[in-house]
Amino acid sequence: MFYYFDLLGTAAFAASGVLAAIHKRMDFFGIFIIAFVTAVGGGTLRDLLLGVDIAWMKDLNYMYVTIGATIFTMFFHREVDRNNWSLAILDSIGMGVFTVVGIEKGLMNAHVPLICITLGTLTACFGGVIRDILANEIPIIFKKEIYATACIVGGMVYFGLTYLNVSSNQVTVYVATTVVVIRLLSLYFDLSLPNIYSDDSEDN
Amino acid sequence: MFYYFDLLGTAAFAASGVLAAIHKRMDFFGIFIIAFVTAVGGGTLRDLLLGVDIAWMKDLNYMYVTIGATIFTMFFHREVDRNNWSLAILDSIGMGVFTVVGIEKGLMNAHVPLICITLGTLTACFGGVIRDILANEIPIIFKKEIYATACIVGGMVYFGLTYLNVSSNQVTVYVATTVVVIRLLSLYFDLSLPNIYSDDSEDN
Amino acid sequence: MFYYFDLLGTAAFAASGVLAAIHKRMDFFGIFIIAFVTAVGGGTLRDLLLGVDIAWMKDLNYMYVTIGATIFTMFFHREVDRNNWSLAILDSIGMGVFTVVGIEKGLMNAHVPLICITLGTLTACFGGVIRDILANEIPIIFKKEIYATACIVGGMVYFGLTYLNVSSNQVTVYVATTVVVIRLLSLYFDLSLPNIYSDDSEDN
Repeated sequence: MFYYFDLLGTAAFAASGVLAAIHKRMDFFGIFIIAFVTAVGGGTLRDLLLGVDIAWMKDLNYMYVTIGATIFTMFFHREVDRNNWSLAILDSIGMGVFTVVGIEKGLMNAHVPLICITLGTLTACFGGVIRDILANEIPIIFKKEIYATACIVGGMVYFGLTYLNVSSNQVTVYVATTVVVIRLLSLYFDLSLPNIYSDDSEDN
Repeated sequence: MFYYFDLLGTAAFAASGVLAAIHKRMDFFGIFIIAFVTAVGGGTLRDLLLGVDIAWMKDLNYMYVTIGATIFTMFFHREVDRNNWSLAILDSIGMGVFTVVGIEKGLMNAHVPLICITLGTLTACFGGVIRDILANEIPIIFKKEIYATACIVGGMVYFGLTYLNVSSNQVTVYVATTVVVIRLLSLYFDLSLPNIYSDDSEDN
Repeated sequence: MFYYFDLLGTAAFAASGVLAAIHKRMDFFGIFIIAFVTAVGGGTLRDLLLGVDIAWMKDLNYMYVTIGATIFTMFFHREVDRNNWSLAILDSIGMGVFTVVGIEKGLMNAHVPLICITLGTLTACFGGVIRDILANEIPIIFKKEIYATACIVGGMVYFGLTYLNVSSNQVTVYVATTVVVIRLLSLYFDLSLPNIYSDDSEDN
């Protein structure tokens, strides 16, 4: 269960990387590189910090999923791209899943909840940050600051539900859903209230 | 002594991250994320390179100090921010302390002085570089190139004083002071001589 | 043989870092920092991912080569810089060599070809990406997307020739040459066909 969610998050992040790379008119290998870094960047940082083997180097399924999601998204990118929300939704699913995976890998390595939530947040956010930096965009984590907040709240829900003895699979679904809902709601509010932060902003 | 200096550097860097994030109008969790990455980014890189446990994952005091410094700086940011020099001074203290900590952790792991100075410099500079990249600013290490120079000179002072059998605590204070003084003097000269590099500069 | 190629790639990447830093008018230590990060950044990422000792921390020759290449390039940068192609050629040589070194270090650590090619590509590309990000340029890997493609094709040539029992030294030369030729040909075509991507590009 845990494992397949990790692969699902990898696919969702790869797809979001493909869309960002296509916007920058890269060729196939360029698109694949951005997709790959986006998909495995967060998990790689998590595994480096934990001092464990890097997941995608030991299990080729991560690579296959990335390649598959990349090719699929390249074929359907026009359809996906016409919908403004597609990148945000894919990104949110990846974030929700990776938050859970980061927390659970932290627990497996005997870390306390505060560190596990941090790991979950770093895991979920780092891939997207690298994607945006490589595409020379302001990282979306900065423009939509609720990005990291959603992961932290999701992490709190995780340990709250675990404390209440909710079953592990249910916790996974609830936490991932929490992250996705918070992030999409925040995007929706930002879209309908565009002037709140921009009127006398000091940055570009 | 060494340990408390590490926590002091962490607090100073967290505060500098808070100021940078507030300039970008982030909310509480966004500010905390930038503060955290700035505070522990350099030490994390150092520990990854050394192949040792990541300091903040094994000792929650780093997290508590970051949270405390973040909340404190948020409350007093108006006062701090009116003083142009506040970010530079906090940043310099963090750099001075982290240079020493990086060198000493290198020595503990049996590395030669050249590698230890490199570790100290990377440790001191990396957190600020990440802060600036995440805030979509040109890294201050690039605009104020004396940044890294101060750490390298501080590292030379460290091994010079150690060679002269100066006591460890005194060395720590002298080296941190050296880094802070070099950096602040260089900032002051840049401020009073603004035209030296800008007249026919090739960059933006 | 393998070892000296690694040092040669380090020198070539250091030189490309020096040129980028001089364009940004940094002082000696600033130039050295950019040169150092460019030269060892890719190998450092590779060694972190493999979980092995970081090459430049155990063998000071990497540091000496970086210092030597930095000083040499600083003295001759005017001559080098008048030739538009100098940075691209140095960069290509570094990429070609690092692709081979990354693949072979992956093989030494018992990884499959797909992972080895990925390691070679990351090793070859990451130093240049850090250089460009630190110099506040759009990473050249993004603007010249054939960058990563050259490494991936080079990796395929590596395993093709190895499968055909070509001797290891010959494979090294052929693969490095393949990467350099693909990259320089692609640069040449981009220079003579500048309007293909820029007419209705969505990015800046």
